[in-house]
Amino acid sequence: MYFEIQRNAEISLSKQIYLSIVDQIRSGFLQEGMQLPSVRDLSKQLEVSLVTVVKAYNELEQDGFINSVQGKGTFVNAERKAAADTQTEALPFNWQLSVQNYLPRSQFARFHHVPEKIHLSSSMVDPGLLLNRPLEREIQQILSENPKIFSQYGEIQGDSQLRNAMYEYLKKAEVPAEPDNLLVTNGSQQGIDLIARTFIGPGDVVVMEAPTYPGAIDVFRGRGATILTVPVDHSGMRVDILQHLCDKHKPKIIYTIPTFHNPTGVVMTSKRRRQILDLAQSIQSIIIEDDPWSEVYFNKKPPAAIKSMDHYGHVIYLKGLSKTLAPGCRIGILAASGSIFNRLLAAKANADLGSPLLTQKILLPFIQSKKMTDHMKKLRTALRIRRDLVLDLLSQHSPDGVSWVIPEGGLNLWISLPSWIDTNLLLLEAKKQHLSFLPGSACYPVEQENHHLRLSYSYMSEQQLHQGVTTLCSILHSEISSKKLHDHSPYF
Amino acid sequence: MYFEIQRNAEISLSKQIYLSIVDQIRSGFLQEGMQLPSVRDLSKQLEVSLVTVVKAYNELEQDGFINSVQGKGTFVNAERKAAADTQTEALPFNWQLSVQNYLPRSQFARFHHVPEKIHLSSSMVDPGLLLNRPLEREIQQILSENPKIFSQYGEIQGDSQLRNAMYEYLKKAEVPAEPDNLLVTNGSQQGIDLIARTFIGPGDVVVMEAPTYPGAIDVFRGRGATILTVPVDHSGMRVDILQHLCDKHKPKIIYTIPTFHNPTGVVMTSKRRRQILDLAQSIQSIIIEDDPWSEVYFNKKPPAAIKSMDHYGHVIYLKGLSKTLAPGCRIGILAASGSIFNRLLAAKANADLGSPLLTQKILLPFIQSKKMTDHMKKLRTALRIRRDLVLDLLSQHSPDGVSWVIPEGGLNLWISLPSWIDTNLLLLEAKKQHLSFLPGSACYPVEQENHHLRLSYSYMSEQQLHQGVTTLCSILHSEISSKKLHDHSPYF
Repeated sequence: MYFEIQRNAEISLSKQIYLSIVDQIRSGFLQEGMQLPSVRDLSKQLEVSLVTVVKAYNELEQDGFINSVQGKGTFVNAERKAAADTQTEALPFNWQLSVQNYLPRSQFARFHHVPEKIHLSSSMVDPGLLLNRPLEREIQQILSENPKIFSQYGEIQGDSQLRNAMYEYLKKAEVPAEPDNLLVTNGSQQGIDLIARTFIGPGDVVVMEAPTYPGAIDVFRGRGATILTVPVDHSGMRVDILQHLCDKHKPKIIYTIPTFHNPTGVVMTSKRRRQILDLAQSIQSIIIEDDPWSEVYFNKKPPAAIKSMDHYGHVIYLKGLSKTLAPGCRIGILAASGSIFNRLLAAKANADLGSPLLTQKILLPFIQSKKMTDHMKKLRTALRIRRDLVLDLLSQHSPDGVSWVIPEGGLNLWISLPSWIDTNLLLLEAKKQHLSFLPGSACYPVEQENHHLRLSYSYMSEQQLHQGVTTLCSILHSEISSKKLHDHSPYF
Repeated sequence: MYFEIQRNAEISLSKQIYLSIVDQIRSGFLQEGMQLPSVRDLSKQLEVSLVTVVKAYNELEQDGFINSVQGKGTFVNAERKAAADTQTEALPFNWQLSVQNYLPRSQFARFHHVPEKIHLSSSMVDPGLLLNRPLEREIQQILSENPKIFSQYGEIQGDSQLRNAMYEYLKKAEVPAEPDNLLVTNGSQQGIDLIARTFIGPGDVVVMEAPTYPGAIDVFRGRGATILTVPVDHSGMRVDILQHLCDKHKPKIIYTIPTFHNPTGVVMTSKRRRQILDLAQSIQSIIIEDDPWSEVYFNKKPPAAIKSMDHYGHVIYLKGLSKTLAPGCRIGILAASGSIFNRLLAAKANADLGSPLLTQKILLPFIQSKKMTDHMKKLRTALRIRRDLVLDLLSQHSPDGVSWVIPEGGLNLWISLPSWIDTNLLLLEAKKQHLSFLPGSACYPVEQENHHLRLSYSYMSEQQLHQGVTTLCSILHSEISSKKLHDHSPYF
């Protein structure tokens, strides 16, 4: 088991232990029936008092995560375990359990590929709306134009033609980034990971929105970051609270998804974008602007990216192309400048020596042409229809006490339930009916709220959405009307 | 600047400072004219004595890496700088220089893509010998069999069909690994990186051969590993020395390239393979067996992989397919078992959520069929001809004092020169004649030997090899006969 205890953090040591164990259970690292270290051993290992460990274990037991058996020890509880997709250690490999790792959390992956019939848990786009036919049609030409496409390494930085094309594309969106300042990554996920491995080490402060994208939390936690959180309102990240945090802690990195924020769908106002940039400049911080789907707006175009105002190289801008174009190619673009860019390029070399040339060349004709903007237009229309359908269904069928934020773009809908409902448990119910969603707790970097869920309306057909949302509503009805299933957990 | 000082290491603190600065110069992080911290500041920062820093700076100056200017400070020297491919900080981005990073070394990338006419510096295979035509011919069928290839995410672990095919392929090579125990990576480089980020943290001990593959050094250094080295003789890694190191330091990971070792080309004997595995079992260590090109043998088939004897999950086996099949697809396979495998899978999810589906599906029909073995056979013949040509030319043209190891397979030839020749300087001469090779110093994790070089005979045509090797020999002749250019550096 891997613990990182930060003595000068705002959050108490017992709560750190609590959260660390919850994260490991939810990541599948601690599995049903596994034994936890004794109170004495853990207190010795972490150099904290016995009382601190006892407090953490008591709260874990109260909340149903673990079970103490008199005279035998403390074990991970079956009730609250994550979906068991990995097996307990087989006998000949038992020695491996003593091999320490540096992996505190990997929650997002557990929801990314859930083979449920009605899959509402990850923000993927219906393959029917993406590029299959157009790419298939052109492939012979791409091959004949690039005779050595299979047999040559691409540049570590990414294919120069693709970087030129992305430069032109981003320029139209007012994101200024010369081809030399663009790096091709394996999706935005790798972009976040490269930044974290280059600039974040134990105790470095990262500020994130709460809730936020779970894949980014996994990455920063993996680097031992001290994560501080800022809530989100209808205008985006609360800059007033960010300001206080910055004054006190001078974060190294501020991670934000300003446009159609994941998971809430909220758009940050122009004013706040300007303020955040000013703040980063004043304390010499780096902003990561994660922008996977600003093209997918339903009413008006969102404000220009923070990167568009960045003259001093504070913003590292990530444009994922996986979700909205071609997941099968796994391509993302990172834009940065100066030595920050050069160091990220070195990190990319160390990580994998560059993304495959093939996937880059295949997308090139599409990105270079008008087809790219036409495609985004089509996507807007199609996803708007699905969003509207889901909103209609929720209005009709959801019980009292359920609320949501209307997303003006993007792929996700954030739904809040009465505070005594734990969506991790609700998911177990939903799975019995072949339905999946993302439990909100996965989106919180530190203190977790359990009564939200994220529903992605982008992947399923209208018919499936209909079935999914009505099923979800009927589960909610019976949960809320029974009210017996759960006790209010005093901890959260 | 990033320093990691290890107080209990076998190597002195002043040498650690020396090597750290050399690495950063050779990685291009410290560029010509950049100012180093003052002796006083660095001693404060690292909490070491002034004398220690003075000793390191003196030796750096003696060896020509830095220059002290009375009253002004200490600067990186022009003479010994790495090839300048990155620019010094532009004015508006100056604030970035104070942003600390966790990137001690990234040397390999600097030699991976060198646009010289006669490119002998990286072990890539001539595209003419790789899969272009066969993949092109089949692509329409692949697309029709996989109608959603562009628009769907693959599994994070890698496409199950590809894993099944690799299971069959590896079985023939006596490497036992069920499809469930295989992970698809972006080349072996990512495999090494995933292992390091999961299991290695500051001060964890990694044993490597010296010399070894520079890309692996970059990765382990990036995790703050304490690297210990074992020399290589004609039978592979010196197991007697490894034994001593293991007794004393109990390394967490032993990294080895047993078959056609990179850079020396040596094959580890069966006996030593067995001994290394026994050793790892006795001290509960992990072995990384990096096996990029065991299929490319010129005389007899090399001994079975260490992994073939592994019953307790000690060996993580890496089979790169980039070099020998299709660099444009960047695919590697990692085989491991038990919780070690599960944790690497979680790390892959955090790193990039999975490799592109497209590149995996495209290689599938090839790997599934007899074509794979036929291709390897063809490659053996073609590369043997090139190796023989280079050996002939060296025998004919190289001056006295130059020696080499005859490789029985693989892509590389390791050449040793008189000890007073520094191949980093020699490379500057070679580049004037549009010739590149890998200076040996990049292959040493700790104490660097400067009088070797690696020549890859796999990428260039026979005609280019002819030109390259005769040019190299004539440069060597003039270096050796002049003997004036260099002074013997007392440090190494």
